[in-house]
Amino acid sequence: MNIRLVFFFLGRLLLLLGVSMSFPLFWAFYYHGNDILPLVYAMSITIGAGFLFSFLGEGEGELGRKEGFAVVAFGWILASAFGALPYVFSGVLPTFTDAYFEAMSGFTTTGASVLTHIEGSPLGILFWRDFTHWLGGMGIILLSVAILPALGVGGMQLVAAEVPGPVAEKLRPRIKETAKLLWIVYIILSAAEVLLLYFGGMNLFESLCHMFGTMATGGFSTRNASIGAYHSVYVDIVIIVFMFIAGANFSLHYYALKGRLKVYKDAEFLFYTVFTAFSVLLITFDLWHHHVYKSIGQDLRYASFQAISIMTTTGYATADFGKWPYLSQFFLLFLMFVGGCAGSTGGAIKHIRIMVLLKDGVRRLYRLIHPRAVMPIVLNKEVVSEEVVADIHSFFLLYMLMFVVATIYMSSLGLDTITAISSVAATLGNIGPGLARVGPAQNYAFVPVAGKWLLSMCMLLGRLEIYTVLVLLLPTTWRKV
Amino acid sequence: MNIRLVFFFLGRLLLLLGVSMSFPLFWAFYYHGNDILPLVYAMSITIGAGFLFSFLGEGEGELGRKEGFAVVAFGWILASAFGALPYVFSGVLPTFTDAYFEAMSGFTTTGASVLTHIEGSPLGILFWRDFTHWLGGMGIILLSVAILPALGVGGMQLVAAEVPGPVAEKLRPRIKETAKLLWIVYIILSAAEVLLLYFGGMNLFESLCHMFGTMATGGFSTRNASIGAYHSVYVDIVIIVFMFIAGANFSLHYYALKGRLKVYKDAEFLFYTVFTAFSVLLITFDLWHHHVYKSIGQDLRYASFQAISIMTTTGYATADFGKWPYLSQFFLLFLMFVGGCAGSTGGAIKHIRIMVLLKDGVRRLYRLIHPRAVMPIVLNKEVVSEEVVADIHSFFLLYMLMFVVATIYMSSLGLDTITAISSVAATLGNIGPGLARVGPAQNYAFVPVAGKWLLSMCMLLGRLEIYTVLVLLLPTTWRKV
Repeated sequence: MNIRLVFFFLGRLLLLLGVSMSFPLFWAFYYHGNDILPLVYAMSITIGAGFLFSFLGEGEGELGRKEGFAVVAFGWILASAFGALPYVFSGVLPTFTDAYFEAMSGFTTTGASVLTHIEGSPLGILFWRDFTHWLGGMGIILLSVAILPALGVGGMQLVAAEVPGPVAEKLRPRIKETAKLLWIVYIILSAAEVLLLYFGGMNLFESLCHMFGTMATGGFSTRNASIGAYHSVYVDIVIIVFMFIAGANFSLHYYALKGRLKVYKDAEFLFYTVFTAFSVLLITFDLWHHHVYKSIGQDLRYASFQAISIMTTTGYATADFGKWPYLSQFFLLFLMFVGGCAGSTGGAIKHIRIMVLLKDGVRRLYRLIHPRAVMPIVLNKEVVSEEVVADIHSFFLLYMLMFVVATIYMSSLGLDTITAISSVAATLGNIGPGLARVGPAQNYAFVPVAGKWLLSMCMLLGRLEIYTVLVLLLPTTWRKV
Repeated sequence: MNIRLVFFFLGRLLLLLGVSMSFPLFWAFYYHGNDILPLVYAMSITIGAGFLFSFLGEGEGELGRKEGFAVVAFGWILASAFGALPYVFSGVLPTFTDAYFEAMSGFTTTGASVLTHIEGSPLGILFWRDFTHWLGGMGIILLSVAILPALGVGGMQLVAAEVPGPVAEKLRPRIKETAKLLWIVYIILSAAEVLLLYFGGMNLFESLCHMFGTMATGGFSTRNASIGAYHSVYVDIVIIVFMFIAGANFSLHYYALKGRLKVYKDAEFLFYTVFTAFSVLLITFDLWHHHVYKSIGQDLRYASFQAISIMTTTGYATADFGKWPYLSQFFLLFLMFVGGCAGSTGGAIKHIRIMVLLKDGVRRLYRLIHPRAVMPIVLNKEVVSEEVVADIHSFFLLYMLMFVVATIYMSSLGLDTITAISSVAATLGNIGPGLARVGPAQNYAFVPVAGKWLLSMCMLLGRLEIYTVLVLLLPTTWRKV
């Protein structure tokens, strides 16, 4: 591996991160908060580290597979380490474990929080907290549309069908261009949401923060009661719509903004839409059946918000679904594994993978009767290669394996089974809130230190499609060619 | 499909089943129970139905894939329907739903029970209850070693490596021979266990019943407190050893009994052994760490019994593990998915599949760095074909899918999440007891009628490796050639 090239990119990343801290700093000044100095310190250290990495690094050379994996994984790890500094310096989360958990939760667009006194925290810090979502979201779009398909991770090659990707061995040239186009889409949609929230009565600060949390399918709120604090049907609807948009493939939005609306006939998008509708109806029915709210309209309102929030892996809440009937609870737990579309800011397994897996299941059933039948899997009129199908199966297995191993570990820390299961499902899938003791009305503050680190690792693993992190454990990745 | 040929085989099966009811009838006479007449009625009806099916059927013709699947699935379904009659007629389980659940639980060697007053039931009926396990176990050995590999179900082709299987299109000739050899092994091991239990102080009746439950990895006991009722280290050890034997591939035992002991160097058997040891140690540690029993010796005793009972999918209990620490509980829940070895009477996913899946995961990780590397998966020095690897992945997916769908349904009946999850895991994996309200100290009697039917279906699906049942839902299976 060309370590110096990796350092070069990490240096750039830290410089950008440091500069981005000027945004929360602006709000700290604006509100005359006591978080001005902490943010200045954090910014200085991050920029300093950025220069150090740049100095140690060397920008020449070819960015190959090994370097690609290293930049991505260490990029998120380092961003979280430096992104944790504002929490530590401001005293909002004085221990590094808590601060790191919160920062990782931000950059991986998870939204799991250890912050118990949200509404008492300095606003610059709260802005930073949500801004890490938005920055993480930018990283994810770049990753899922340009980098992972090229590296061939877990069937993400399928995403490349929309935006032609670079040749596997040479990453650099096309990444910049693809990224630029998609980021423009991201920014346009973000601006639209801020305006809609602002005109709905939120102030600019809260509009921005909640837009960050929505567009990145993150889930940090500036309120303890999350979106439920606004008691506004309008706000609920705006957030629902934008969560749904953020959970879809951004390259579709790119073409749609260019006027080609029929790109939404995309197979994954249709599946995502139908599956969302089904989930909303099922939970609405369950809430109605158990008389949870006063009217079926309210059942629909809370069900649609929560189903879409969990499925897109956002994690905002308008109700304490930990108190809903068991069907709704288990179905939400199941949705934590489903996730958004590939090429979105959503996490977890993703719809395109589930489609391929289901199609393969049906095909194999048919083959038991007709063993010699040739039945390729077709998506959007294109044949999916058997290699990609195998990659996806393998990803699914690894996802379940990580889930089981992490849950065993969380159980060993004394967490009851539902808390252990849902804390891992909610971090591995980058959702945020789980059930029982990590439910929407609770948070992750009580989790033992070892558990916080494990869950931080789950967020990273889930966000980077598992393989990207695990591959760094192979000795061969570190060998010089 | 040649329906008349299917009828012919089902007729034979029912005749055998009817005749086998003479064994419980013997015990009913011996104990002068009030279950003599009920058993005579059940026997007459079953034999009558057997003649009817034989009369409608026609033994000529080739037993192809379609007929193979139909005989297997309807064989279990019909056996359970007629096997339920003794429960109904004797009034032990007066509703057909309960009786069918208990019979399906018996024939699929699950051991989940709706019988609440075990020790007050007539002994002929209790004998029949355990005898269905043993008969089911015979069916499973035949199925997993001779039939499923030939039909190419979910990677079961791998099992055929030990006992050369028949050519895919022509099932009949070799099945008889393979079955005879393996049944001899089954009977020899069964006899050994009965003797050991008998000399350990159990009477012949109870020795037989518990042997049936062990050798078939079933789990029905003649006592409410299961094996825990005997308070005997000797009995625990005998049952542990025979559960472990029953969870291993019977074709290995066949060669071992012929003197070739080194067959136990088989890759799956070694993996099974190591995994068992690890599970026992982990649970022992957890029990010791939480001071659950008075000495580490007791921790080891209860941990080894329970870990092996659950992993082999037997389901006998010597402790209420629903009250153990969370790590032990979750790990046992996880073991419900692992199951025994292929070619054993154990159910669930099975070790050989897990090995192939793990090897494929590691291989794919390595390939991300070296995309052109060719890395076949090797088991017992033989290359596993990519088709089989794909079959196994697909099986794993389908298993998880069935698990999720069934759990959603159980949740909708008002079962709490742990009960819903574990009831499905414990029936789909053919274990028996789960956690919470279906834990070892409880039983399935409280489950609503719809839930009992669904769980009966889960037992069938799990036992027949899912595909064998689902394939009957394809229209093409029913078409005449």
